[in-house]
Amino acid sequence: MIGAGDATGGAIARRFAREGFVACVTRRSADKLEPLLAQIRAEGSEAHGFGSDARKEEEMVALVERIEREIAPIEVAVFNIGANVRFGITETTARVYFKVWEMACFGGFLMGREVAKSMLPRGHGTIIFTGATASLRGREGYAAFAGAKHALRALAQSMARELGPKGIHVAHPVIDGAIDTEFIRSNFPERYALKEQQGIVSPDSIAEAYWQIHRQPRDAWTHETELRPWMESW
Amino acid sequence: MIGAGDATGGAIARRFAREGFVACVTRRSADKLEPLLAQIRAEGSEAHGFGSDARKEEEMVALVERIEREIAPIEVAVFNIGANVRFGITETTARVYFKVWEMACFGGFLMGREVAKSMLPRGHGTIIFTGATASLRGREGYAAFAGAKHALRALAQSMARELGPKGIHVAHPVIDGAIDTEFIRSNFPERYALKEQQGIVSPDSIAEAYWQIHRQPRDAWTHETELRPWMESW
Amino acid sequence: MIGAGDATGGAIARRFAREGFVACVTRRSADKLEPLLAQIRAEGSEAHGFGSDARKEEEMVALVERIEREIAPIEVAVFNIGANVRFGITETTARVYFKVWEMACFGGFLMGREVAKSMLPRGHGTIIFTGATASLRGREGYAAFAGAKHALRALAQSMARELGPKGIHVAHPVIDGAIDTEFIRSNFPERYALKEQQGIVSPDSIAEAYWQIHRQPRDAWTHETELRPWMESW
Amino acid sequence: MIGAGDATGGAIARRFAREGFVACVTRRSADKLEPLLAQIRAEGSEAHGFGSDARKEEEMVALVERIEREIAPIEVAVFNIGANVRFGITETTARVYFKVWEMACFGGFLMGREVAKSMLPRGHGTIIFTGATASLRGREGYAAFAGAKHALRALAQSMARELGPKGIHVAHPVIDGAIDTEFIRSNFPERYALKEQQGIVSPDSIAEAYWQIHRQPRDAWTHETELRPWMESW
Repeated sequence: MIGAGDATGGAIARRFAREGFVACVTRRSADKLEPLLAQIRAEGSEAHGFGSDARKEEEMVALVERIEREIAPIEVAVFNIGANVRFGITETTARVYFKVWEMACFGGFLMGREVAKSMLPRGHGTIIFTGATASLRGREGYAAFAGAKHALRALAQSMARELGPKGIHVAHPVIDGAIDTEFIRSNFPERYALKEQQGIVSPDSIAEAYWQIHRQPRDAWTHETELRPWMESW
Repeated sequence: MIGAGDATGGAIARRFAREGFVACVTRRSADKLEPLLAQIRAEGSEAHGFGSDARKEEEMVALVERIEREIAPIEVAVFNIGANVRFGITETTARVYFKVWEMACFGGFLMGREVAKSMLPRGHGTIIFTGATASLRGREGYAAFAGAKHALRALAQSMARELGPKGIHVAHPVIDGAIDTEFIRSNFPERYALKEQQGIVSPDSIAEAYWQIHRQPRDAWTHETELRPWMESW
Repeated sequence: MIGAGDATGGAIARRFAREGFVACVTRRSADKLEPLLAQIRAEGSEAHGFGSDARKEEEMVALVERIEREIAPIEVAVFNIGANVRFGITETTARVYFKVWEMACFGGFLMGREVAKSMLPRGHGTIIFTGATASLRGREGYAAFAGAKHALRALAQSMARELGPKGIHVAHPVIDGAIDTEFIRSNFPERYALKEQQGIVSPDSIAEAYWQIHRQPRDAWTHETELRPWMESW
Repeated sequence: MIGAGDATGGAIARRFAREGFVACVTRRSADKLEPLLAQIRAEGSEAHGFGSDARKEEEMVALVERIEREIAPIEVAVFNIGANVRFGITETTARVYFKVWEMACFGGFLMGREVAKSMLPRGHGTIIFTGATASLRGREGYAAFAGAKHALRALAQSMARELGPKGIHVAHPVIDGAIDTEFIRSNFPERYALKEQQGIVSPDSIAEAYWQIHRQPRDAWTHETELRPWMESW
């Protein structure tokens, strides 16, 4: 689980832990993972936290290698880093454009490749990349974010076509709606108010959908799917 | 459940019956439903069969009305009629072109509309239309079949956008691969032989996916998703 | 040219006539074609009008056969019939749903098939089906219209894949915006007012785009493209 | 015109020069542009070559600024750099993954942004980004290339939605087929042999399509379109 910093990442880790998986969660600073680790352990499961920068090749190589060696073979890997920024095209600095790609896409490539290396000899495993509306459509102000998410989708699709016939299930669920996170609470309070009517997506619902994807039998795998609140207009 | 004649329809009916639903299944001749009804009842559930032509407006209106009045409010409706034919464009007769649309699309419209009328005042319910690869892409020989499936997809999407904000979950799962049916066994034996490696889709896997769609909380509904065997090339 | 009743059909016929083609235009009542025929003739070109119901197989067969025999081999065929209606799903009658499909899709199938029969032995020709936003997306109120347009798109795509390698260019331009027609002028006056700023599509611009599609060399054919006013939001 | 190194870039530059435009062409080493410049000048048009690395922000800023100051306001800008590589996911190095994105996408962002800054105050101009099949679909071996092309498409679409209503026409033509270039001649000789039957795309046909896009009136702009040889299977 790369990108366990937000509510979504945490909910996914807890959902799989509840099924008996050992949760290995990462974010840039390991300290901040403590509350999540404590919560998972309190629920009776095993959990490990790693401070790791998903954008650094050597760190990702080492991370996957270490989990495989010290903990267990990786059965499920989830890439859940976003970088939702919005700038008009002339206000988008080269630095922002690059950083958004590096976080939301390049880190996914590094994780996906390393995990695939471990899974291939075993002939099974699940790799999930979290998508967003911007994975499917560009829009005013989204050159950087949609670019990174489109590229991540291309990665997921290319990996699915290559690795599916080798037994590895690669999925790209698209969350089309605001998620119940601190980010939405602070920045879009009107949107957040829809929570009472289930108008924003609960991290637990995402976690449940990811769990269902993982447990699909291999005769009926989902690659792309969408999760959207009932009242969302699209 | 409209179109319970094949293995897929039967598996879906049994899956929902196992969760306590009363299964109401239809196909053109009610007699042929007897084995399925017997099977569901043997599993301890309630089941009713209806001989009904999904292409006839008056029959569909009467069917929905009768189920609502005599049995129970319809909570889930599944449209599962296909009409997979293949003809080059100059060999496609007007009769075939029309019949394929009438079976695979028009029947879906009638069922969807009638069920929506019943569900709207209650503010909840699930309507699922079974899609296929041809729902997304035309191809040589598929002018008729892809036309009907594209139109059914447009119906599902139009209904989802209209009825979602009124509490009704409309979904369009796309089955991208051969299904384990008598039709495939007889007509594509080489394909069918992939069954041993889970290379064709099991009706039970489809039924499970439909069940998962129905039980999604309304903050995270799936409209379109795909089910595909691991070894399928796409 | 099937569906020459509106401004778009007329503009296309005139554009091709200006390049030396003999314009054969049809609509249900031949009388109403007189002004268009007079205009094309006044511009120095040859034009013929046919009263013909595009939904009737025998009429379409006879029409194509007659043009081929009496006038000239058909080099370009355009299907331009729409049927833009909007009804909520529960207000959509079976009659409307069927009629919209019959006009906007079934007629296209009949024209496409008959013209393909004539073009195939010659190994060249262009067939264009006019698409709309509803060809790509369903939407509240558009179950019938989007269904017909999706099906027409599947027809165009299936024909393109089958007939392209036989030398026939099948194209599906999608008009994404209001067109400068009497229908828009009467029903959407605010929209129509955008005409002054080129905010609605001119039939002459569509005609020019169709002409450019026809004259593409066969190493670089366009199948799908979109035409959209600069100020349109999408 | 960024990326004038190959046959396509050259053909586009010559096509616009023939219409009276001053051709400003760039590639990494200016020397290699001499034959193209000589050819354009021999055809009676003005041409300037610039050695410039499209991946370097300061170089692109300076380039656009210099053309605007010394030569003329930029009326049309074309980004035509590809980076078609193919590696299985586990063989894709981080260096390759990054380089492909940097060349085929980041350079497009820099060019697009700088040109947009110049065009916005004038309220008109055309920006074209060359797309490929990989812009629309991932595939085994294409994680890097499809990622970059998907991201470029997201850029084009985001810019089109933002800049269209400000008078700037942003287009993304997708070339779906092999192009008649030295690269195809050397690496795919069997494919290249289809040239005799017009089975591969001629750079001149691409150039003509780009010219047609530029001259569209603003009531009917194309954003995305495809160019594909008649015999291509898709």
